[in-house]
Amino acid sequence: VNLILLERSEVSDGGEVTLADQRAAHMLTVLGVTAGSEVRIGLLDGERGSATVAGIDGATVTLRCAFDGRRPPRPPLDLLLALPRPKVMRRLWAQLAALGVGRIILTNAERVERNYFDTHVLSEPFYRPLLIEGLQQCRDTRLPLVSVHRRLKVLVEDDLDRLAAGSARVMADPAAPESIGDVVPRHPGRRVLLAVGPEGGWSRFEAALLARHGFEAVGMGPRTLRTDTACVALLALAHDAWLRAAGDPRPA
Amino acid sequence: VNLILLERSEVSDGGEVTLADQRAAHMLTVLGVTAGSEVRIGLLDGERGSATVAGIDGATVTLRCAFDGRRPPRPPLDLLLALPRPKVMRRLWAQLAALGVGRIILTNAERVERNYFDTHVLSEPFYRPLLIEGLQQCRDTRLPLVSVHRRLKVLVEDDLDRLAAGSARVMADPAAPESIGDVVPRHPGRRVLLAVGPEGGWSRFEAALLARHGFEAVGMGPRTLRTDTACVALLALAHDAWLRAAGDPRPA
Repeated sequence: VNLILLERSEVSDGGEVTLADQRAAHMLTVLGVTAGSEVRIGLLDGERGSATVAGIDGATVTLRCAFDGRRPPRPPLDLLLALPRPKVMRRLWAQLAALGVGRIILTNAERVERNYFDTHVLSEPFYRPLLIEGLQQCRDTRLPLVSVHRRLKVLVEDDLDRLAAGSARVMADPAAPESIGDVVPRHPGRRVLLAVGPEGGWSRFEAALLARHGFEAVGMGPRTLRTDTACVALLALAHDAWLRAAGDPRPA
Repeated sequence: VNLILLERSEVSDGGEVTLADQRAAHMLTVLGVTAGSEVRIGLLDGERGSATVAGIDGATVTLRCAFDGRRPPRPPLDLLLALPRPKVMRRLWAQLAALGVGRIILTNAERVERNYFDTHVLSEPFYRPLLIEGLQQCRDTRLPLVSVHRRLKVLVEDDLDRLAAGSARVMADPAAPESIGDVVPRHPGRRVLLAVGPEGGWSRFEAALLARHGFEAVGMGPRTLRTDTACVALLALAHDAWLRAAGDPRPA
């Protein structure tokens, strides 16, 4: 945890917050705070800042918060992901938030098993703490927006223009000759929507549907990766390509 | 599993192999092979090829193998990794093999807890099947070489020139202004040795030691990632940079 995230409702008008949960335990046992210590904080979907430990009472920590007045921008990438096995999805939530995605759009596909949708892993009470864990790791405050779609065709034809308006669209395809670093610079300054298919790949129909709706195929060389490894690798490459295309290789 | 890997000793002089383990179960239940089916195979650290199912007897599958006569090249990257928590290391083995590394050099560091070394996760009988799982996923045959080092200073001063002779050396450093895509192209054609520190980072002494031995610092933008996410992201970026520097963006 490199940032303690707070809900806006937790902070008093005077800028104080009293915590008695895992965040307090983390400050006391891992960070080893004492009265007067400074910790990095953030408001969920809001500003970052720093806080002074105003008091400790057993396992309870009271912070006095100061925010920097600037909300970090939403990450410039969105992910359209064919729903993986629950075990894989569980592992992905925190990593996706840490890598930085604005939206996580989960969808059905021909090679997605129907029962993958009947899991608590897709319930907000389950995944929200994992997304927050990822944000606290990477010092971001912007919670990814999550939506789950049962029909790929409806999603692509009816919903995507609203969910990812104006984005450059790329789809992972092991056979594609171009890489994400080739395609993204052709759309400088635009958000990027990255589509990642199921373990067995998109069906021919699905690939054609995506291509017809503007998705350009990008490969990753000859190595076929597991969905979770591929998502992390592709998001890293997409961020890198986006930053290069924006002409700002390493912003602060 | 996209490739069934065989030990050289399992294949008869006549090119036949009889399997009754997980590989047989995978062929029968996931691939749904019958007599005459073709499957992709590989020899551990050797050639790839294809096999014909010559016979099925209950849970036992006999394959007739034909190899292509070419051993795939060792991946051009090596990883020097400060030993992470056993839980994280367990998750990493298969992913590292799938992403492609020639060597996995695990080391102690100031911020590595000593008891991380006392785990079965570092024993060859534990990690070898996981490395093979990763190779079978990505269709490679080259098993990463693994070594574990208790003293970073000895490793860097005495062993590294032998373990990674002639490699370009880069170290992940969140604060570095350059990216791996900036540094690797300055060393075209050379193998790349990527050093990734512990969760808390290298100590100042360790970072200086690495810098003195030729490691150039590379950043990944402002987001701090968990060790396993960072390894996957950095290896993906390093492969991409290496391929670009080699002037061959997407080899077959």
